[in-house]
Amino acid sequence: MLKALFHVDEVNKWRLALTNIRNLLADTEVRGVEVELVANGPAVVSYVRDAALGNELRALANEGVRFVACRNALRGNHIAEETLPDFVQVVPAGVSELIRRQSEGFAYVKP
Amino acid sequence: MLKALFHVDEVNKWRLALTNIRNLLADTEVRGVEVELVANGPAVVSYVRDAALGNELRALANEGVRFVACRNALRGNHIAEETLPDFVQVVPAGVSELIRRQSEGFAYVKP
Amino acid sequence: MLKALFHVDEVNKWRLALTNIRNLLADTEVRGVEVELVANGPAVVSYVRDAALGNELRALANEGVRFVACRNALRGNHIAEETLPDFVQVVPAGVSELIRRQSEGFAYVKP
Repeated sequence: MLKALFHVDEVNKWRLALTNIRNLLADTEVRGVEVELVANGPAVVSYVRDAALGNELRALANEGVRFVACRNALRGNHIAEETLPDFVQVVPAGVSELIRRQSEGFAYVKP
Repeated sequence: MLKALFHVDEVNKWRLALTNIRNLLADTEVRGVEVELVANGPAVVSYVRDAALGNELRALANEGVRFVACRNALRGNHIAEETLPDFVQVVPAGVSELIRRQSEGFAYVKP
Repeated sequence: MLKALFHVDEVNKWRLALTNIRNLLADTEVRGVEVELVANGPAVVSYVRDAALGNELRALANEGVRFVACRNALRGNHIAEETLPDFVQVVPAGVSELIRRQSEGFAYVKP
């Protein structure tokens, strides 16, 4: 079972990140992969302000992709946690999540 | 033996990536290193449209650097595989290659 | 003990990198973390030309964060090593440091 960790911290990198995740899930040579995406920095605003993206994220969440938001970044961008889509998990610090997951064997990809 | 995996997904990052690889190969404190570069996203166009870069890539390929292109990205950018330089290997999905190689012990570097 | 390796190669990514490091050090759920930041490419100029940043780096260095500069990048940017702040360590090639540290269990983060 492969484990993939995507890091998005710029608004304009979401598109490339989602293409990466879709290609990964569609790759018939990959048998079983656990996927998590951690958004921190300015990128977290897209969770609440980009409805089209939100629909795509929900579809991927329904396929098992975990979407994570950094609490520090939410606060810094004045986003109330209760306004996030229900499939987004909040962690105290996105950067800690990125490091912890790698220590658990996740491979890091920064689109 | 160190293992290094470079990820390039933007056209304007090739220069920095090649400088990194050259510095790595020239580092006399490094005794033996396996080097692979995976290009996906818009960066794959440089494999066919930048002749000067192509010459530099070929020189590095001759030194043992593996250059990989993502098939999804080639299709998305309307690049026929047979127009790629002969030293470029095509994989079904660049993102899967990035994850698989890390699970094999390659260290990831995103210039 | 977690180990975190930050990579900065663009001048305009320092801000995000320092926010990441501060959030990591402030995360009360993280018990013990070793932090190193490797600057290569154009980013090394900030070590000598951005006094405000320098003060922030020194404060973090006093908290145990290791700051590293790539000798190739220093030469490429005409920066004499003796003009660096005393808390900055110089390595022959930043890219080799990034790879070696990952082989030692450091998790890579590219802000």
